[in-house]
Amino acid sequence: MSTQGNNLDPWYTHYADRTAGLAASEVRALFAVASRPEVVSLAGGMPFVSALPQELIAGAFERTMRDYGPTALQYGSGQGMPALREHILEVMALEGIRGGVDDVVVTTGSQHALELVTKLFINPGDVVIAEAPSYVTALTVFKSFQAHVNHVVTDEHGLIPEALEEAIAALRAEGRTIKFLYTVPTFGNPSGVTMSWERRLRVLEICRANNILVLEDNPYGLLYFGAPAPHAMRSVEEDGVIYLGTFSKTLAPGFRLGWVLAPHAIREKLILANEAAVLSPSSFTQHVVSEYLDEADWKGQIDTFRGVYRERRDAMLLALDDYLPDLSWTHPDGGFYVWVTLPDNLDSKSMLPRAVKELVAYTPGTAFYADGNGRTNIRLSFCYPTPEFIREGIRRLSTVINGELELLTTFSQTAPLSVSLPDDTIISPPANLG
Amino acid sequence: MSTQGNNLDPWYTHYADRTAGLAASEVRALFAVASRPEVVSLAGGMPFVSALPQELIAGAFERTMRDYGPTALQYGSGQGMPALREHILEVMALEGIRGGVDDVVVTTGSQHALELVTKLFINPGDVVIAEAPSYVTALTVFKSFQAHVNHVVTDEHGLIPEALEEAIAALRAEGRTIKFLYTVPTFGNPSGVTMSWERRLRVLEICRANNILVLEDNPYGLLYFGAPAPHAMRSVEEDGVIYLGTFSKTLAPGFRLGWVLAPHAIREKLILANEAAVLSPSSFTQHVVSEYLDEADWKGQIDTFRGVYRERRDAMLLALDDYLPDLSWTHPDGGFYVWVTLPDNLDSKSMLPRAVKELVAYTPGTAFYADGNGRTNIRLSFCYPTPEFIREGIRRLSTVINGELELLTTFSQTAPLSVSLPDDTIISPPANLG
Repeated sequence: MSTQGNNLDPWYTHYADRTAGLAASEVRALFAVASRPEVVSLAGGMPFVSALPQELIAGAFERTMRDYGPTALQYGSGQGMPALREHILEVMALEGIRGGVDDVVVTTGSQHALELVTKLFINPGDVVIAEAPSYVTALTVFKSFQAHVNHVVTDEHGLIPEALEEAIAALRAEGRTIKFLYTVPTFGNPSGVTMSWERRLRVLEICRANNILVLEDNPYGLLYFGAPAPHAMRSVEEDGVIYLGTFSKTLAPGFRLGWVLAPHAIREKLILANEAAVLSPSSFTQHVVSEYLDEADWKGQIDTFRGVYRERRDAMLLALDDYLPDLSWTHPDGGFYVWVTLPDNLDSKSMLPRAVKELVAYTPGTAFYADGNGRTNIRLSFCYPTPEFIREGIRRLSTVINGELELLTTFSQTAPLSVSLPDDTIISPPANLG
Repeated sequence: MSTQGNNLDPWYTHYADRTAGLAASEVRALFAVASRPEVVSLAGGMPFVSALPQELIAGAFERTMRDYGPTALQYGSGQGMPALREHILEVMALEGIRGGVDDVVVTTGSQHALELVTKLFINPGDVVIAEAPSYVTALTVFKSFQAHVNHVVTDEHGLIPEALEEAIAALRAEGRTIKFLYTVPTFGNPSGVTMSWERRLRVLEICRANNILVLEDNPYGLLYFGAPAPHAMRSVEEDGVIYLGTFSKTLAPGFRLGWVLAPHAIREKLILANEAAVLSPSSFTQHVVSEYLDEADWKGQIDTFRGVYRERRDAMLLALDDYLPDLSWTHPDGGFYVWVTLPDNLDSKSMLPRAVKELVAYTPGTAFYADGNGRTNIRLSFCYPTPEFIREGIRRLSTVINGELELLTTFSQTAPLSVSLPDDTIISPPANLG
């Protein structure tokens, strides 16, 4: 469904040009079906919040109301609570980041930080360079401000510096204005891949030389399964990096609290943009999270999450080995996702209705590209279902894939055989599955 | 302070054109001083949340965690919780509004609804028609999307229909594209004025005839002090009105929950824009507020707020009568604000430092105009200080005003005599005072 109006909408001539970039997914209805309990959903990005002891939240709430009641119910500042910003510095220090409490801006999830940064920098037609593949709802935001997204290829060590240099040169030759590079360098969404330390340094060097900001989005960095990930890019570069963090994966997304760490002048503008957009982030959830960080063993809690997700990652990789040994996939050392490559003659988007019929859901790879690529990829999430459900989901997926391949062999077809869907828009799952 | 970069900012060439509309207030530092306890602030728009019994919130929290724990901590939908949307219909019914639960979109305060609607409709240069004066942070949002704000004069019965017609004709003659009319028709911010029922009908008729959307922003409608206010404009016009509501004034702003009721096609786009901006409003605060509305006597609580604010309104009007009998001011029947007109030879912005020195703060009238008007107006808020502090604040204000007038008489000056401030930007208080 296009969101451009039609003549059933009396206001269809009134929308701003940028709404052309706001497209609903044609598989939205399918994802609604996929949320039924009998479907194993490997499509979502929902953290397993049941692993969080509720009494920790209850304690934080009680202290909030006892000690700060009227303040927690009131408007706050556009930059966020100083006490919470202090805690955010402690969280970031775990990934090598040093910053001042004045440099942090609290946002309504890191999603809103993406929106605010894009609003601050992007004129229609400006270029955002993004990893291929990239987080789907970041692409939605860039398009909603009429950015031109230019993907740069990645491999198992993340963004390829030489490809970045070539892309910059080509864009400059076309006279394009490049505003920033968007990257999820650690346990990337959707790839699960981590950019190596050497590449981080090289990418920073290239961006510095070319006067391009780096937008480092790091929701998963602390969810490592073995050794900690390489330090954040922001740990070695202050002036050229806008860093985004969030409590959604290490605590809970229901609070909608994330943050930006940005160079001074940019941070000042982000505060103004934040005030215009929401006046202030929620004082209530800021206080509750700040109290949680004050009193709870939050590092121990993150360790619990690591254990949960490690077990699920292991279950997924083992099931892939067992059921789909002929495919290839990434081997994430943390985070939520595995990125699978299908045989060339399959199409992940058109295969999805058949998968849902077999009671398994995934996200088609095209969701993570602004340019229509990704047709032979799927993103599998291991964050939410139990190991047993993950294994059963992969088994069902193998039935679907093998069935498709068999049909192709039987009819000697070269084109994918499947239910056809229009292919001119990004496929994005609804927010709670993204 | 302009937010356009300078050469101390290495990224000053990178900002989007729309950031020219993001201006910090030059009286920001002054408002920081004004938040000291010895200053009587009549500047803010903070509701008196201490009148809300904390045990009601505690009960709502406990039921939320007991019955919905993992759901309340998880991502939600971009449209908001169905149960909360049901309650929102009950709230709106008090002002004559009938709508379906599918037509409501929950937002991060009604401020974010303003941002989303503006993002959906405004191309650079498009016109927003706004009452003169208008809510300051709505003007900030419009400017942040490069709208041209065209004010239309008001009197004690609100927007003047003839002036609206003239403005539309003049703008059309100039070839301008008018997207919507922005109005706070009930107990307006900053004027305290309420648009009469007759005028509401006439304004709707004019907008319908001219294919102009009405953006009806109604944070204060239920806070009436005598008879209920006229029904919302949305109560008689569904297709042409986007209606904004909020829990910030009738419950508490710390939850950051507001809503939009919009025609079907617009609502679909608002959901997509909401998902792009924040994925979903906070599940946690939505559950707590929904539980509060389930169990608490919320109508009785609004009645309590009415009593608190009525007493403060009375104290302010009496003090104005007693201390500043030569000035004129509005007589609000609800809401938070009185709008005062100073003698022609005074300047409210340049008088502010002197007022703060006398330990009283107000918001200069220029904050509420996009066109530099309002220099002889001030907005006084009676929502937050006690009646005794309000009276003392007005007494201090009278000292300042009379002192200014005396100086003018002594020196026979015709121009205002006062500390001078640059006058090329909107004066806006920080968010928690706005």
